[in-house]
Amino acid sequence: MDRMFNGMNLSMMTDFYEFTMANGFFNYGMRDKIAYFDLFYRKVPDGGGFAIAAGLEQAVEYLRDLHFSEDDIQCLRSKKIFSEEFLKYLADFKFECDVWAVPEGTPVFPGEPIMIVRGPAPQAQLVETMLLATINHQSLIATKASRISRAAAGRAVMEFGARRAHSYAGALYGSRAAYIGGCPVTSNTLADRLFGIPAVGTMAHSWIQMFDSEYEAFRAYAEMYPDSCTLLLDTYDVLGSGLPNAIRVFDEVLVPRGYRPAGVRIDSGDVAYLTRCMRKRLDEAGYPDCKIVVSNSLDEYIIRETLIQGASVDTFGVGERLITSKSEPVFGGVYKLCAVEDEKGNIVPKIKISENVAKITTPHFKKLWRFYERSSGKAIADVLSLHDETIDDTKPFKLFHPDYTWKTKLVDGFEAKSLMVEIFRKGELVYDLPSLESIREYCEKSVNGLWDEVKRFENPHEYYVDLTPKLWEIKHEMLKGRKQ
Amino acid sequence: MDRMFNGMNLSMMTDFYEFTMANGFFNYGMRDKIAYFDLFYRKVPDGGGFAIAAGLEQAVEYLRDLHFSEDDIQCLRSKKIFSEEFLKYLADFKFECDVWAVPEGTPVFPGEPIMIVRGPAPQAQLVETMLLATINHQSLIATKASRISRAAAGRAVMEFGARRAHSYAGALYGSRAAYIGGCPVTSNTLADRLFGIPAVGTMAHSWIQMFDSEYEAFRAYAEMYPDSCTLLLDTYDVLGSGLPNAIRVFDEVLVPRGYRPAGVRIDSGDVAYLTRCMRKRLDEAGYPDCKIVVSNSLDEYIIRETLIQGASVDTFGVGERLITSKSEPVFGGVYKLCAVEDEKGNIVPKIKISENVAKITTPHFKKLWRFYERSSGKAIADVLSLHDETIDDTKPFKLFHPDYTWKTKLVDGFEAKSLMVEIFRKGELVYDLPSLESIREYCEKSVNGLWDEVKRFENPHEYYVDLTPKLWEIKHEMLKGRKQ
Repeated sequence: MDRMFNGMNLSMMTDFYEFTMANGFFNYGMRDKIAYFDLFYRKVPDGGGFAIAAGLEQAVEYLRDLHFSEDDIQCLRSKKIFSEEFLKYLADFKFECDVWAVPEGTPVFPGEPIMIVRGPAPQAQLVETMLLATINHQSLIATKASRISRAAAGRAVMEFGARRAHSYAGALYGSRAAYIGGCPVTSNTLADRLFGIPAVGTMAHSWIQMFDSEYEAFRAYAEMYPDSCTLLLDTYDVLGSGLPNAIRVFDEVLVPRGYRPAGVRIDSGDVAYLTRCMRKRLDEAGYPDCKIVVSNSLDEYIIRETLIQGASVDTFGVGERLITSKSEPVFGGVYKLCAVEDEKGNIVPKIKISENVAKITTPHFKKLWRFYERSSGKAIADVLSLHDETIDDTKPFKLFHPDYTWKTKLVDGFEAKSLMVEIFRKGELVYDLPSLESIREYCEKSVNGLWDEVKRFENPHEYYVDLTPKLWEIKHEMLKGRKQ
Repeated sequence: MDRMFNGMNLSMMTDFYEFTMANGFFNYGMRDKIAYFDLFYRKVPDGGGFAIAAGLEQAVEYLRDLHFSEDDIQCLRSKKIFSEEFLKYLADFKFECDVWAVPEGTPVFPGEPIMIVRGPAPQAQLVETMLLATINHQSLIATKASRISRAAAGRAVMEFGARRAHSYAGALYGSRAAYIGGCPVTSNTLADRLFGIPAVGTMAHSWIQMFDSEYEAFRAYAEMYPDSCTLLLDTYDVLGSGLPNAIRVFDEVLVPRGYRPAGVRIDSGDVAYLTRCMRKRLDEAGYPDCKIVVSNSLDEYIIRETLIQGASVDTFGVGERLITSKSEPVFGGVYKLCAVEDEKGNIVPKIKISENVAKITTPHFKKLWRFYERSSGKAIADVLSLHDETIDDTKPFKLFHPDYTWKTKLVDGFEAKSLMVEIFRKGELVYDLPSLESIREYCEKSVNGLWDEVKRFENPHEYYVDLTPKLWEIKHEMLKGRKQ
C-alpha cells in the first residue's frame, strides 16, 4: 500500500472527551485498571435482517500505528487541562490492549459484539471514536451493497459513487466495503490502485458533446477502444439517435475488425421500457451478446422494481444511493463498557441502564457463538455466553428470548462455532489479515448460509441472539438490583 | 498543516472513465482543445431554499498537488488501453486550467455555477470526480449545519458526529464544513489540530461506570477539571440520581474552591420535560449560570420542536444527523460541459438535452451576478450572463423566468456584484485562500443577507436565478434547433 496512506497518523481523530476521560483515568489511579468494551450495533439499517461487519483491516492499521507526534502533544498541552505525566504517556504511547473481533464479511446481528477491547482504561477508552468511525462506515456500506447485489439477482453491480461520497476516504473505503458486500467492480481508480478492486468506466455525456455529432463520438471511441467498447446512449435520445448510432458504429467499426461490442449504457429514462426495446433491437441487429448497463440513482428497491417490470439489464451501475447508503446513512454502532477487573484480576461486570430498554447493555466479558444446523449448514441462532463458558453441541440446547423468557426453543443437531478471533494480544498484532478477495468470498458464503427468511428486505424473520442461562442470570440480577 | 495530510496524492481518486475519456481526447487530437465545465447542483437538500458552497480549499489543494507517481502510471499501464504518449503526459503532468469559483460560505442556488473549469479537454475532464466529491461533501454538511444552527435560534450547536461519519475524512472535513455553516465547536480533536476548530468534550457514560458510584465519578471529574466541569446526568436516572449527585458535587467540590459549574448534559430522555425540571432545580440550588447541554440524534426538526415545547437548553450537541446529513445525505452536484473553443479561439456553446427538463444544462461560458437591494442590502436575485456581458445596475433590469418567460419582474435600486472569483490562471494558483474563521463570518453575513422567506425550512420562496436576454436567446435557439 502507498506510503501516503500507510502510517498516516489518525491518533488525533478522536472525540475530545476520550482525552479528558483518559487523562482522568490516568491521574485517578486507573492507569492500569483493566476495562472491557464491546463494540456492537442496535438496529439493522433499512429494516433488514442482518448487517455485514466490515472495516476491521483499517481498524487494525489504526491501532497498530497509534502514536502521538510532538505537534499532537503540543496541541493537547495548549488546552491546559492534561497532566504532564499523561502527555508523556501519550508521547511514549505503546498499545497494550487485547482485541477480538468477528472477521470482516461476517453477517452480524443487533446486540452482539463485533469487537471486544480489553486493556488499561485510558487506552481502551481512547480508541473508541476511530474504531467506531471505521467499523460503522464500512459496515454500513457493506450491508447496503449486500442488499443491492441481492436485489440484482445474479447480475453484476458496479460501485459508481465516488463523486457523491462523503470525502475521498468515504469513497475509497466505501468502494472497499461495497466490494466485500458484493460489488465486484468500482469506478474509483484509487480503489483499484490501493486495494486491487477492478476499476471500470467508459464515457460520460461530455465525451459525446465534445464531438460534432453523437455518431462521430461513438466512432472515435470504438476506434480507440475496440476491445472494451461500451457506448452511452442517452445524451440526446436513446431510441431515436443513441441506439441507431451505436449499432451503426458496431457494424462499421467493430465487426469489420473482428471485435464484438462490450455494451451500451443508459443513465436516465424509463429503464424497464427502454431496455426491453434496446434488447430487441440489439438482438435483431445481430448483437445478442451486447450487454445492457443501467445506472441513475439506483438502489435495491428500484432494481427490484425494475426487474419485476421486465427490464432487460445485464449490469447495474450504482452510485450515490450505495456510497452514502442514502435510505439510511447511519450505522449506529456503539462502544460500551461491559466489565472491569478488580485488583485481584476478577472480572466485575458493568451494565448501562436506560429508560429506553433497547439501550440497556449486556454486561461482562463475553463469547459469541453461532449455531449451524448440521443437516443444512444454515445458521440458526447466535448465543452470547460468558467468556469461559463452552457450549456442548452434542446435546440439545434450549434457546430462550432474553426479554420474553417464556419464548423458548429446543435446538438439536447443530454445530456451535465461536465467531470472534483474536486480533491483538497485549498490543501485538496476532491476526493474519485476510486478502480482500477472500473476505468477499467468505461474506458471500456466510450470507448464503442464512435462511431466506432472514434475508428479506422488509419484515425479515428476527434471528435469535440469545444469552446462556449463566449470562442471563448475571444481567438479570444486575437489572433487578440496579447493581451499577 | 500536517505533512501527512498535505501533499497526499489523490490524483487517482478519479472515476476510471475520466482516464478513458482523457486518453481518448488526448489521442484524438484534442490534447489542447479548450473545454469549459460548470460545476453546479440541481436541488436544495431537505427542500430548503439555498445551499452553502464549501470545500473550495480542499479542491484547490487537490488541483495544486495534482501529479501521478510512477506507481500510478504503472497501475494505469497495466490496463493496456492507454497510449504511452498519454501516460507520459500524466507522468509529466502540469495543471494548465483556469478555474473560477464562488467563495466558500456563499449561499448558492440550483443551476448556477459554483465552479467553472476552463482548459485542455483531457485535464478539465480528469479533475471532475475529485472536484465533485470535495464540493458535494462539504456543501452538503455546511448546508445542513446552517439549517441546524438556525433552528437553534442563537444557542450554540456543537458538532459531535465523528463516530458516525463516513470515514475519518468524512469526519474531519465534515467538521470543517459544519464550522463554516455555523457550528463553532467540534468533538473532533483532529479538526482542532489541523483546522483550529475548538474541540470540546467532557465524559461518556463509561466514565461514570468505571467508578463505584455516580457520585464518586462526578466528584473525581470535578476535582480533576474544576474549571470546565460539565457532568453527564443520564447514566442511571436523570432527575433521581444524576442531577442530585451533580448539585452535591458542585456544592462540595466546586463552590468551596471558588469555581462555578460549566454545565450538565443529557443524552437521552424527554428533552423538553427533563430540561425544564433541570433548569428549575439548578436555579433553586443556586446555579442559574450552569448551562444545560443536550445531545441524542438531534437535527433541525427535533431542535425546533424541542424549543417550541419549551425546553430549556443552552447548547445542542449534534452528531449523526449532521455529519451524515441523515435526512438527505446526497448533495447532487454535477460537472457538465458547457462550451468548447474552436481553432480560432471562438467559444462554441454546448448543451445537454434531456427528456427530464430539469436536467437540461445552460450552455456557454458564463458569469454569475447577485443583485442586492440598495435600501436593505438583501439579495434579491441572481442572474447568469455571458462571460463578457456587464450589468448596468444604474438602470432598471427586467428579470424573467427562464422557463415561464411571461413571469417578469422589473427591479430597480439594486447593486449587481459578480460572485465568482479567479482561483487558477493557466494552472497557477492566484487566489489567496481565506482563513476558516473569515469564511465562517462571511457565510453568516451572507445568510443574514437573504430574506427570511428564502430561509424557511419548508416551502421556501424560490429565489430568482435568471438569465440575461442574450444568454436565454442562445440557450433557446439551441433547444429549438437541437444544435447539439
